[in-house]
Amino acid sequence: MLDNVTRPALIIREPVCRNNIRRMAEKALKSNVIFRPHFKTHQSEQVGNWFKDYGVKQITVSSAEMAMKFAKAGWKDISIAFPANPREIPLYNELAGNIRLNLLIDSTEVCRALAGKINKTTAIFIEIDNGYGRSGIAHIFEHKIDQIIREIDKARHLSFKGFLSHSGNTYSATGTEEIKNIYQKNIAVLQSMKEKYLPSHPGISISIGDTPSCSIVEDLSGADEIRPGNFVYYDLMQYYLGSCRMQDIAVAIACPVTGIYPERNEIVVYGGAVHLSKEQLLRDGKFYGFVVQFTDDGWTEPIGGTSVISLSQEHGIIRSTADFISSVKHGELLGILPVHSCLAADLLKENMLVV
Amino acid sequence: MLDNVTRPALIIREPVCRNNIRRMAEKALKSNVIFRPHFKTHQSEQVGNWFKDYGVKQITVSSAEMAMKFAKAGWKDISIAFPANPREIPLYNELAGNIRLNLLIDSTEVCRALAGKINKTTAIFIEIDNGYGRSGIAHIFEHKIDQIIREIDKARHLSFKGFLSHSGNTYSATGTEEIKNIYQKNIAVLQSMKEKYLPSHPGISISIGDTPSCSIVEDLSGADEIRPGNFVYYDLMQYYLGSCRMQDIAVAIACPVTGIYPERNEIVVYGGAVHLSKEQLLRDGKFYGFVVQFTDDGWTEPIGGTSVISLSQEHGIIRSTADFISSVKHGELLGILPVHSCLAADLLKENMLVV
Repeated sequence: MLDNVTRPALIIREPVCRNNIRRMAEKALKSNVIFRPHFKTHQSEQVGNWFKDYGVKQITVSSAEMAMKFAKAGWKDISIAFPANPREIPLYNELAGNIRLNLLIDSTEVCRALAGKINKTTAIFIEIDNGYGRSGIAHIFEHKIDQIIREIDKARHLSFKGFLSHSGNTYSATGTEEIKNIYQKNIAVLQSMKEKYLPSHPGISISIGDTPSCSIVEDLSGADEIRPGNFVYYDLMQYYLGSCRMQDIAVAIACPVTGIYPERNEIVVYGGAVHLSKEQLLRDGKFYGFVVQFTDDGWTEPIGGTSVISLSQEHGIIRSTADFISSVKHGELLGILPVHSCLAADLLKENMLVV
Repeated sequence: MLDNVTRPALIIREPVCRNNIRRMAEKALKSNVIFRPHFKTHQSEQVGNWFKDYGVKQITVSSAEMAMKFAKAGWKDISIAFPANPREIPLYNELAGNIRLNLLIDSTEVCRALAGKINKTTAIFIEIDNGYGRSGIAHIFEHKIDQIIREIDKARHLSFKGFLSHSGNTYSATGTEEIKNIYQKNIAVLQSMKEKYLPSHPGISISIGDTPSCSIVEDLSGADEIRPGNFVYYDLMQYYLGSCRMQDIAVAIACPVTGIYPERNEIVVYGGAVHLSKEQLLRDGKFYGFVVQFTDDGWTEPIGGTSVISLSQEHGIIRSTADFISSVKHGELLGILPVHSCLAADLLKENMLVV
């Protein structure tokens, strides 16, 4: 199956991936919310096409560049879920001439910059920060939010689409109950904002994001739209958050064994920070991935007592048991389940293989 | 100067870069060692060409892929300073047909795999692990080293070139004295090994690597060849190790400001883990970079009390002072001095600008 893999490659299990997509699509349907998946995780035209089989027509991306790529691939309704960047307005105009484009802002300054230069109809979400502390405006700044909406209303080519948030604080939650609480608090704030502005702006909606909330909360009907991204592949971070089972992880990085060191209980693979990223987890020590063995139709459960403990640019150091180390051969491919699949997939987007 | 920069880009100061190259080339000349710089840091044909002005003819890379790239660009003598990977032997043969190729190994198993399939003259370094604990064989395993050399001697197309080490343990040193000690210990071991095998293998040499040693040790004459890479750009990690001054850092990542949050003393820029990497430093808290402002011919010193404290895929969060935050505008470009320039340059290799 992987005979032609010579250097680190992202191996994608299509059936697992499709199951992840199907489950999320079914939950969205049952909750009566629009499913607008975030394509920043896979950034792949091929994987993107699988979503069409589950009724997806609207997508989310994290950059204007990515929006261009998927617009060229035929997607017609794209949200760039990253604060609008005044330096990319020409690209936004090009996009808005071809697709339904949704941008997000959190300030009157950027709204005015867009208003002066956007010359094709563009929908605008206001990003709300409900405690994550990254981008977005906190709902308590009512006066500022009023001001932004007035600026949008004044602008000829901008239309107010609603409120959007990303509860990235679910990633530091200590359990699924905390994730559910973050979700509920987030939805309550967004709903109250929607209610306030719905009379003056009929048709506005609320859009929520993160994979932990969308995976763990059963009924998402409080939102109008969901934008999870990571769930397509999942990863060890999501596994430890309780978002997925180990067998739901749809990607492994295939890495050739280049060194075997029984005297220090370690193996070195061709697979480093430029393939896996330096995203780490802390659980009984720091690690960058778990190790699996490839089988005819996928891979095994993680090998017990075995993890990637260190990464340099191209080298990955795996600490393992004497038993496993004695079974490994130079040149053999091992699979690494990544800590954060979005970053590994970004690094390996030119070198992926679907199985 | 940077008017056309719309998204995160690697800005390279050519004069600073050339000074870094010139200083290292002069030290190599004075120490009478071959200067075989590691091109994994910049991976750029343009930056690679600058080295020719300082007499460089031999280079180091970290993958067969990179060797192909620089062979196509006209480089004729290339070491792949990564353990030979049995799955890439066809690529090694292609390379060895066109250039002088040097590989490294640390086991009889890989030596035998190469011996059976390499069909063009290839030079082989044995990698020695002098305490870093990544790849390489410890010098105490004399019997194994003898065995590897016998295997090389038996193979028709392989020739034994000498001993190579990378003292990556200098990166966890707590001061320049410790770095000097690591260097001395490393050189002493390699010299004793060279002496042992020189009578039977005239012409073998010893090759050493890391930027901290090569920057801090004044006289490198104990080696025959040096392979530093990071010094071409340097970065905050090297600054804190004592390898360089702040003004020797030759790269900054230009990031558009997309959010300003005075109420929490933070700015958000377009510039995240897919641009800077998640390499971090711990000094009064964790950080991913310092912030500079661009000037007509480069950039300022780092802004006081200001650093990148968090990264997600595309967002970078900068914590700063009220004064600085009040001076910043949406859409403005800020520069980020990276913690680890090799990883940032790898991520931005398609989007760099020389000034």
